[in-house]
Amino acid sequence: MWVQRALRIEAPLRGVHPTTREVLGTLPDLARTRIGMLNVFIRRTSAALSRIGDARPGVRRDLDAWPDDAVREDSPYWTHVVEGPDDIPAHVKAVIVGRSPLIPVSAGRPALGTWQGIYLLEHRDHGSARDVMLTAWGEAA
Amino acid sequence: MWVQRALRIEAPLRGVHPTTREVLGTLPDLARTRIGMLNVFIRRTSAALSRIGDARPGVRRDLDAWPDDAVREDSPYWTHVVEGPDDIPAHVKAVIVGRSPLIPVSAGRPALGTWQGIYLLEHRDHGSARDVMLTAWGEAA
Amino acid sequence: MWVQRALRIEAPLRGVHPTTREVLGTLPDLARTRIGMLNVFIRRTSAALSRIGDARPGVRRDLDAWPDDAVREDSPYWTHVVEGPDDIPAHVKAVIVGRSPLIPVSAGRPALGTWQGIYLLEHRDHGSARDVMLTAWGEAA
Repeated sequence: MWVQRALRIEAPLRGVHPTTREVLGTLPDLARTRIGMLNVFIRRTSAALSRIGDARPGVRRDLDAWPDDAVREDSPYWTHVVEGPDDIPAHVKAVIVGRSPLIPVSAGRPALGTWQGIYLLEHRDHGSARDVMLTAWGEAA
Repeated sequence: MWVQRALRIEAPLRGVHPTTREVLGTLPDLARTRIGMLNVFIRRTSAALSRIGDARPGVRRDLDAWPDDAVREDSPYWTHVVEGPDDIPAHVKAVIVGRSPLIPVSAGRPALGTWQGIYLLEHRDHGSARDVMLTAWGEAA
Repeated sequence: MWVQRALRIEAPLRGVHPTTREVLGTLPDLARTRIGMLNVFIRRTSAALSRIGDARPGVRRDLDAWPDDAVREDSPYWTHVVEGPDDIPAHVKAVIVGRSPLIPVSAGRPALGTWQGIYLLEHRDHGSARDVMLTAWGEAA
């Protein structure tokens, strides 16, 4: 059983955005999977997807604070600055904290822990629409 | 061929712990796979799994030293500190160094390099049990 | 449909190297896949593979500059220094910026974004040959 669907997330603001609901809403067929896997793949590299653990605003703010502090927009060693000071740091942050989440599916649902979710991490000040490719495969129930 | 099994790792101490043996012991069916994939997914986000390269204690200590130095528990920008100073830094470290290892399977065995293994990275001082979901799929031999 | 092939990349220089062409050239069967997945797994852990976003030399240089700055070869806390000062930092960098890229396949082609590619990140000064295991699975067209 294979399903593949595109999901577009319109121009998110800089920050951490929950997207589990959008992902699952795009893949209703997941409910018929006994055992399987779900991959969430972002087709840009200045934003990222991650599987993180807590939707409370303080936690989300903190998860964004570290990359902003560790990958500084004013570092003297950047050479590719033509698209603005947030451009290359956004790519580097996406490499460090980004994943293409791969999530096991059990009995029709993603086997996420209680506090886990899928989040879009937007590191550009004015990001464009983010295209995500969802692929699920498995054994039908 | 699909197999899915839960694995619980009881309250690991803070540090880097080899877990390849526990993972493979939980999935005896892997031996019958000609080509396949194995995913090791942790259902908490203040600890992480990673595929790293050397079991010698010095290497393991060093792999833990960098995140401890780079993600400081006393950073002034943390806001979510209610569960102790190791809480949010543990989540951030898990995002940076954590993976849900996805490992190719060849002729019944994970195709890891000579020095590679699966490790649990526990970043909390007093972590609870860590629940791991193992999923393997492939073509039978 | 399962395909698995080994790819050896001979002694790359320290730096960021495009490898999309080598990967796809090793897997001609991908063209017959309607929906599927492609995993690119490196069997060493002092180098890494990543899916990054831009082949221009400036961008590639910048993507290498941050890990070199953040994971310093002269940090006082390294204990495993027997193989040279670039050894343990290379392992740590590979953990931070490395992935085993997992890429959706659509209509016979990897569903990468316009600017995305697969890159080898070599962090050793004198790395040896890097062995990569390619695994693709999916539904035939």
